[in-house]
Amino acid sequence: MTSVAELVRSSPTDLPVDEKLLIETIELLYDGAATCTACADACIAENEPHCAATCLNCADICFTTARILSRATGFDADTTRAVLTACEQTCRTCAEHCERHAEQYEHCRVCAESCRRRADACHRLIDALAA
Amino acid sequence: MTSVAELVRSSPTDLPVDEKLLIETIELLYDGAATCTACADACIAENEPHCAATCLNCADICFTTARILSRATGFDADTTRAVLTACEQTCRTCAEHCERHAEQYEHCRVCAESCRRRADACHRLIDALAA
Amino acid sequence: MTSVAELVRSSPTDLPVDEKLLIETIELLYDGAATCTACADACIAENEPHCAATCLNCADICFTTARILSRATGFDADTTRAVLTACEQTCRTCAEHCERHAEQYEHCRVCAESCRRRADACHRLIDALAA
Amino acid sequence: MTSVAELVRSSPTDLPVDEKLLIETIELLYDGAATCTACADACIAENEPHCAATCLNCADICFTTARILSRATGFDADTTRAVLTACEQTCRTCAEHCERHAEQYEHCRVCAESCRRRADACHRLIDALAA
Repeated sequence: MTSVAELVRSSPTDLPVDEKLLIETIELLYDGAATCTACADACIAENEPHCAATCLNCADICFTTARILSRATGFDADTTRAVLTACEQTCRTCAEHCERHAEQYEHCRVCAESCRRRADACHRLIDALAA
Repeated sequence: MTSVAELVRSSPTDLPVDEKLLIETIELLYDGAATCTACADACIAENEPHCAATCLNCADICFTTARILSRATGFDADTTRAVLTACEQTCRTCAEHCERHAEQYEHCRVCAESCRRRADACHRLIDALAA
Repeated sequence: MTSVAELVRSSPTDLPVDEKLLIETIELLYDGAATCTACADACIAENEPHCAATCLNCADICFTTARILSRATGFDADTTRAVLTACEQTCRTCAEHCERHAEQYEHCRVCAESCRRRADACHRLIDALAA
Repeated sequence: MTSVAELVRSSPTDLPVDEKLLIETIELLYDGAATCTACADACIAENEPHCAATCLNCADICFTTARILSRATGFDADTTRAVLTACEQTCRTCAEHCERHAEQYEHCRVCAESCRRRADACHRLIDALAA
């Protein structure tokens, strides 16, 4: 279990959503922020400007979404849904860009897979919040 | 003129949107990230937990939105609209929270006004991108 | 293996430091950014203002340090050392604050342990860069 | 007066440092985070990988330093000095890189000047904290 999973479990405030799904999404989003930051750096070195800038955007929205999901104290359903929707959209766009170079660059192959997983996780959490 | 305005003007890539509106929105969002970060700190000191956490969320999405708007190289209309929508929603939620303490705390009064201005700026830019 | 570990391994640029130590530190720092963000939220809810603000500071510097370590393309030894030194200092300060509430709050106990591990990891990497 | 200046002035907590110098530094650092983010995007488009990655590092540490300076509630002198030192170092490194392209790219000329101003502001604040 990661420290963040223990933290969410020991929070004095509960979010109105399945805890396991919430923790899994937060962990995927932080791993995504890390993955897209590193993929952006590799794409900058490979001179792939559009893919680099797309990865930078994805890293920033994944990090912000993970943080907002971690703040049970300030939970607001409308904000959470809107931010998850923006994150899902950005992850799908980034996945499409990285997939175009997946055979050429190992970092883009790994990043594209990670982006797809995160987009799906955001989608599941949006559904869970709507239920 | 701020440095960021000069930067956007000297970018080798043009965004398909009015430059003046874009620069104004980016500047408002960075000022908002700064304002909400400081208001969160003041609300933590005043023991206003819900307002503090809402300001932290707003600071993060304002900063991420400002960054994404500054990346002409990775511009994607769907991503930009979704992120601006999330930012507008978060700013409106934060404005509502801070307005409840506007008479009690000067920092919440200033922050609420700043949040309204940013929400409106995001809305105008969404309209401009749709046009 | 996390995605970020795969990413660092597939980067076209090598950092002049042991790859295993580098990946371990990056992973600890991202987990720390996540842990301190969640601990700050819990401390806000518990009305522990000083601990909340300290955790917010620690989350931000951990995230920035993780990002700078992930950018092999822009590697600069002086910058890396100065940032790691600031991160180590901030993690030690945060550990001290959270330890004071470790018996009272499970989130502060977990966060303090995580802060100590990160401070030590930063220290090891500073030594490795100096060698 | 920017919103962030009003916010710092209305904070319930005072920092043990000259308020005018503090506000000026915070404003310069946020403008720097904005400037370096935009310069990184321009450098990515111009295929200047090392300068792009250096600007990304500088944007991140400027933003984190501005945030830490805005959190009077969690003020810790050792942390503040260490973070300002890291920020000054990163701004000087970024200034050197951008200056090499100052005649070729207007964005690098503006960014280099902005980096020098911020490095000097960080230095003055470190001196003020030591006094």
